[in-house]
Amino acid sequence: MTRREVECSAPVNIALIKYWGKRDENLILPLNSSLSITLDQEELCTTNYVYTDTAISQDSLTINGLPHSLDTPRYLSCLQTLRQLSGRHERVWIESTNNFPTAAGLASSAAGFACLVYSLAQLFQLDCELSAIARRGSGSACRSMYGGFVEWKRGVLSNGEDSIAYQVFSEDYWPELQVLILVVSDQKKSVSSSHGMQRSVKTSPLINTRAESIVPERIQLIKTAISERNFESLAKLTMMDSNQFHAICMDTLPPLFYLNEVSHKIINMVHRYNEQCSEVRLGYTFDAGPNACLLVQKQHVKQVLAIIHYLFPTSNEDKFVIGKSNSVSPTDLPAFVSSLGVTPHKDGIKYVIHTAIGTGPKLLKKNL
Amino acid sequence: MTRREVECSAPVNIALIKYWGKRDENLILPLNSSLSITLDQEELCTTNYVYTDTAISQDSLTINGLPHSLDTPRYLSCLQTLRQLSGRHERVWIESTNNFPTAAGLASSAAGFACLVYSLAQLFQLDCELSAIARRGSGSACRSMYGGFVEWKRGVLSNGEDSIAYQVFSEDYWPELQVLILVVSDQKKSVSSSHGMQRSVKTSPLINTRAESIVPERIQLIKTAISERNFESLAKLTMMDSNQFHAICMDTLPPLFYLNEVSHKIINMVHRYNEQCSEVRLGYTFDAGPNACLLVQKQHVKQVLAIIHYLFPTSNEDKFVIGKSNSVSPTDLPAFVSSLGVTPHKDGIKYVIHTAIGTGPKLLKKNL
Repeated sequence: MTRREVECSAPVNIALIKYWGKRDENLILPLNSSLSITLDQEELCTTNYVYTDTAISQDSLTINGLPHSLDTPRYLSCLQTLRQLSGRHERVWIESTNNFPTAAGLASSAAGFACLVYSLAQLFQLDCELSAIARRGSGSACRSMYGGFVEWKRGVLSNGEDSIAYQVFSEDYWPELQVLILVVSDQKKSVSSSHGMQRSVKTSPLINTRAESIVPERIQLIKTAISERNFESLAKLTMMDSNQFHAICMDTLPPLFYLNEVSHKIINMVHRYNEQCSEVRLGYTFDAGPNACLLVQKQHVKQVLAIIHYLFPTSNEDKFVIGKSNSVSPTDLPAFVSSLGVTPHKDGIKYVIHTAIGTGPKLLKKNL
Repeated sequence: MTRREVECSAPVNIALIKYWGKRDENLILPLNSSLSITLDQEELCTTNYVYTDTAISQDSLTINGLPHSLDTPRYLSCLQTLRQLSGRHERVWIESTNNFPTAAGLASSAAGFACLVYSLAQLFQLDCELSAIARRGSGSACRSMYGGFVEWKRGVLSNGEDSIAYQVFSEDYWPELQVLILVVSDQKKSVSSSHGMQRSVKTSPLINTRAESIVPERIQLIKTAISERNFESLAKLTMMDSNQFHAICMDTLPPLFYLNEVSHKIINMVHRYNEQCSEVRLGYTFDAGPNACLLVQKQHVKQVLAIIHYLFPTSNEDKFVIGKSNSVSPTDLPAFVSSLGVTPHKDGIKYVIHTAIGTGPKLLKKNL
């Protein structure tokens, strides 16, 4: 009864050029390529402890201590493929935990499936391209298989073999680039990404123009922006693509509303701040929910945190900022804050996570 | 010192297929054709009392009793063209009044310019195509020059001569079709239509696909829907086009937000109601602001008013519904209202105007 075990972690990623719409629902093949940054696991990650021994007679999964079914097409697809490729068929026990509050409304499925696929591949000693397997669990999970700046190539094959992720630039390429996640209060239950994108593909007359004519060029432009470490260009393309994704949601019938009035206020704040600075110092991107993800360079983080704290006064003073910063100083507030034209909104933001770009999945421990 | 005078009125119109974006800012030539319904002047109109006598030495305008400058390119263009074509050069006194509260955030510029052009043409005894002149005052004003269902043809000439409105079907074609205007509370000052569409033309990568590939087909489809009095098709095309207009606003940089959370709630209510009825009984359209304009057939007005009253409880019980209906009865509330899944929102709607389709500008009095 020898126990074989591994412990691994995998990161969250946030798309700068968005994935929205599948051309194949079963294989999870996207309408367009997408490009993301992988976030530092210090602040956000999933950790899996996975083991197998002769006493285990069926696969089990717990997420944050609670039992979770593995009997869904997405889990089954990942498990089957890993077993086929490795030739290992023992049953597995998986304990998965997130180091961030699940109530935060932060998409955890990308990190979750990336961690599942990576940890089982370690357990089964499988050494091959894993992003296409993670993709079958959750499309965006394939991008969490690498650190740094990652592209998920759309691919052209109908079997999906070439719809894989790869690292465009490593996690050390642009260390000044920082990320602030603004967790917005009063999250309403909204249509899941998966159902939402199905509805968009069926009903939005604009989605194909986006996928075919706009995204391919944007991917090229944003890679150039990253290669030149051109913050202005990166932030602008990111904001435009976030807005276009939400435009497609609006062009859907019934329309999908993921942004709320606090999100609108954050967007206005970013544009007004950039205007006041006469340069682009801040960018935003929003996934299928009201939380904002801001891009900012290291030298402006303190000022931006002070502005956020001023415009969104908090009852959660102690833990308003967590991660790489953990405090806000009113002395960092610029004089022009009052001319931003944004009315303060008490407790509109629950808290802010200060993070940065990080590595791909990690093997923390193994005993094979 | 003989006074020559006329009194005229002109209607408000609401676009079902939207105008958004100019190809010529000066001539006010649109990127795409649009199609509107003219609303009954009983509920919404502008009335102009216009006169001239030898004692008047300069043009003047009052709107709702307050002096208003005529020294803007838009007013000057209308006045000059009318004088050139008629050969009449006497100065004029114009008193313009709206029969609806200006605070309601209802676009009054279309009715205002239509009334200006129509009343001066009467005073100057000018008998010619007037919609192209009204267009130079405010694009959508050209549609208020006719009653019923009106198309504003984009045109192809660079001088704008063929960018005119015409009546597609008269005001009596579909009398069962009714309109409810939901005036939403807490209107925020938003970017004007004129500036908003300029920004969209400059920055939205999707606006040309809409103007060139989507709208032309929609105009054909909606004309067919009207000709067949097919409510389901009319309402669906109207909702899709309203959503696409707001999608283009979202695809603009900085994005334009005209809808607020009450607007979102109204949209959700309409889709849930239609689902519950297993047929499309209600459609919506939103211009550059949070107010909704609902399309509904006569036989469902009472039920819809009861639902609105239930989901948006009011402190303005006495005057909550004005116009063709002036009361709401709880007995008209369907049993399924509780399963609509929309949380009631106290005072989200200030009041409702029940109106219908109406005629073009009218000559009320003349003494020439």
